[in-house]
Amino acid sequence: MSKEPKAKSIIEPRVLKGFRDFLPSMEIPKKAITNNLEKHFRSYGFVPIDTPVLEYTEVLLGKGGGETDKQIFHFKDNGDRDVALRFDLTVPFARFLAQHHSELALPFKRFHIDKVWRGENPQKGRYREFTQCDFDIVGVDNAEADFEILSMMDSSFSVMGVKNYQFCIAHRGLFNAFLAHHGVLEQSVEILRTVDKLRKIGKDEVLALLHELTSDQEKAKAILQYISKEDEQEPFLTTLDRLTALSGGENPFSERMRTIYSYLCNAGIEAHFTFDPSITRGLDYYTGIVYETFLTELPHFGSVCSGGRYNDLASLYTKEKLPGVGSSIGLDRLLAALEELGSPLVASASSADVALFNTDVTQFSTYDRIARAMRKHGLRVSIYLLNKKQGAQYKWAETNAIPFAVILSEDDVQNNTLTLKNLRTREMQNALSTEAAIAVITKELF
Amino acid sequence: MSKEPKAKSIIEPRVLKGFRDFLPSMEIPKKAITNNLEKHFRSYGFVPIDTPVLEYTEVLLGKGGGETDKQIFHFKDNGDRDVALRFDLTVPFARFLAQHHSELALPFKRFHIDKVWRGENPQKGRYREFTQCDFDIVGVDNAEADFEILSMMDSSFSVMGVKNYQFCIAHRGLFNAFLAHHGVLEQSVEILRTVDKLRKIGKDEVLALLHELTSDQEKAKAILQYISKEDEQEPFLTTLDRLTALSGGENPFSERMRTIYSYLCNAGIEAHFTFDPSITRGLDYYTGIVYETFLTELPHFGSVCSGGRYNDLASLYTKEKLPGVGSSIGLDRLLAALEELGSPLVASASSADVALFNTDVTQFSTYDRIARAMRKHGLRVSIYLLNKKQGAQYKWAETNAIPFAVILSEDDVQNNTLTLKNLRTREMQNALSTEAAIAVITKELF
Repeated sequence: MSKEPKAKSIIEPRVLKGFRDFLPSMEIPKKAITNNLEKHFRSYGFVPIDTPVLEYTEVLLGKGGGETDKQIFHFKDNGDRDVALRFDLTVPFARFLAQHHSELALPFKRFHIDKVWRGENPQKGRYREFTQCDFDIVGVDNAEADFEILSMMDSSFSVMGVKNYQFCIAHRGLFNAFLAHHGVLEQSVEILRTVDKLRKIGKDEVLALLHELTSDQEKAKAILQYISKEDEQEPFLTTLDRLTALSGGENPFSERMRTIYSYLCNAGIEAHFTFDPSITRGLDYYTGIVYETFLTELPHFGSVCSGGRYNDLASLYTKEKLPGVGSSIGLDRLLAALEELGSPLVASASSADVALFNTDVTQFSTYDRIARAMRKHGLRVSIYLLNKKQGAQYKWAETNAIPFAVILSEDDVQNNTLTLKNLRTREMQNALSTEAAIAVITKELF
Repeated sequence: MSKEPKAKSIIEPRVLKGFRDFLPSMEIPKKAITNNLEKHFRSYGFVPIDTPVLEYTEVLLGKGGGETDKQIFHFKDNGDRDVALRFDLTVPFARFLAQHHSELALPFKRFHIDKVWRGENPQKGRYREFTQCDFDIVGVDNAEADFEILSMMDSSFSVMGVKNYQFCIAHRGLFNAFLAHHGVLEQSVEILRTVDKLRKIGKDEVLALLHELTSDQEKAKAILQYISKEDEQEPFLTTLDRLTALSGGENPFSERMRTIYSYLCNAGIEAHFTFDPSITRGLDYYTGIVYETFLTELPHFGSVCSGGRYNDLASLYTKEKLPGVGSSIGLDRLLAALEELGSPLVASASSADVALFNTDVTQFSTYDRIARAMRKHGLRVSIYLLNKKQGAQYKWAETNAIPFAVILSEDDVQNNTLTLKNLRTREMQNALSTEAAIAVITKELF
């Protein structure tokens, strides 16, 4: 309505601030990653669910609304209902559980990979539309479920081709036991929020804030001591022993951590896990383990996968207690990180394995026949559909990152053969049968 | 804000009218279908793209707005921008093309499977949130591209496990030639819209409307004759010859149809295609072939896949001419149809291949080790995570439609073996090695 372009009734093609198109060069890797993840989750018996993009605002925000309010897209629909676009996949899942738990067999293991929306100001690497990948186990509160989420997280990073990563874990219950031991449990919410800022504002600032909160310099110092690790390389169990002692001795939470760690050791994956008491996660609903994930080579990317145990997620909608543990991968951030790391998963945005050149349109059904035969052997074959010179066809294949070209010379047409060109090496093979060409391509690509 | 439920601050978990949750029993089949389709599209060299869910209202609706206006979800965002949820995948694609065509290598073959939103009144099988599956070839206007879309449509139905379907094709250009031959081309838009109602309102009503439109009973009769097929079984070429004659003889459009049909015959798929001159598709932008798809056993489901050739889709946003041809599958309707047909694709919502029973939690790491070994062989293994009696574990496996259970007896633990139970046949095998169990399960399932 604002700017009227000069050209008669041409509307400027553009997207909203903080939103973006995914061209094939980005969408192909994104799908490769989500497909790999979905297959992996399913191998652990996790199943997909889907929920509406639009929900009652009251359902998403609760009665109050609060801080998130300004950040969400909400409006009145044509039926005068107050509706909003989901801002995460956790709240809709809580609502879903309250509504459907009797139809599901608990323990319930689910994943959900889809878009969410927040109206916050877009920054580098932050968008108003982005994709989250959540996975949770609901209906069980024990070390085995905690371990299974951590174990699947770990193997998920392998599946995505990420090599150097570290999971930083802590335990909310243990921290609360420590706070209770020091008589400041009532202020746990404020203390947690303060501690969560450690990476951002540093120790001195946190200490000052804690002093203000507790009105007690000794207590503030004790809290800072709890969340600080003098030695970054401190072994997991040493940290656990130290924190347990600071909390007044063994308790169910320290024991839970010991069991989880023993499972990690038995599975041989303990090296990826660090006990980091500064991890608290700001959100109120966590009650047990909490964790964040950092890429060793790209620490400035922040956490690419976070979560924890909650024991009362759906309490806004039901009196049923539904304990759970879960994780969320920020796919856009991870995709950007993989791009920066030069991951082959992100680099391979080829549209096809074979470009079938169109040099004589009267032979089109022959091209189609060859393409069908190749597809039956799992090859991706794109026939060039314009009647243009070979130069244009080579260029098209190159822009599409297609590694092989099939070209039919006049001799090929007569003899029912084809010419195969490896577009990477420029190597050419003449007078091949379709079967022989399939063998060459398959050997090279797979 | 309206109804305050009695229970203290519990919010009723519910979704908006016309929206729905997908439980795993529906989401698993939906994903199976979309994964199959994506793999299939990629085998033809089609690539995925993604566009924002939210766009400027002006971009989606054009300057005017018009009839669609009431049907779309639109609102002012926090920045006072007029924004709307996309109501199809075609308009965003036109905008995308206008914006990015210079970055793409034409001809460009793309697919896009995602949700769209319309505020229309929900009816049986119609929702306010639904999934479309679009695929298009842009940058080429010839019989080869038309054929390739039809050919991929045909094989897509095979891939989805649909057996009995019929594509009904017509050609807008040929119809326009016919209208020009009778001097009523100026009224083509109104005539097309009237003709499009044939299935709904019947011949007499259509004739009356056409008479009103053309003010000429003879012309109205001639149009009705063109769009009517006395013999449902009339061969494709007989219909084409008849319509060509009614249009004043051969023209580029009749020749295009002949070429397309020859390609269909050469590919051996012509039996799935009927020339149906009553198919016009209401939408203005089609200029060449148009088609709809009916399931022979479920004609009342209406068309499950429609589309056609457009030669100026992006003209709202650019002066660049971008001809294309494309199709759209209505996935929700198709899913409902497959369910009604008892398709195995829809029936198989099993959460895992193997339920690993948890009979002694001290053996948990052994369960984990067995699960890992089985997953390496492509099996989906879900460990039961609660410490409950076997009866509860059997029930859980049954509700999740898991075909095999692995149980470790005390002997198994001592001898490093396992007990395998086929939950369908109740057959039990004792003292198997993990490898032997993998072999048995793989043989049974794959």
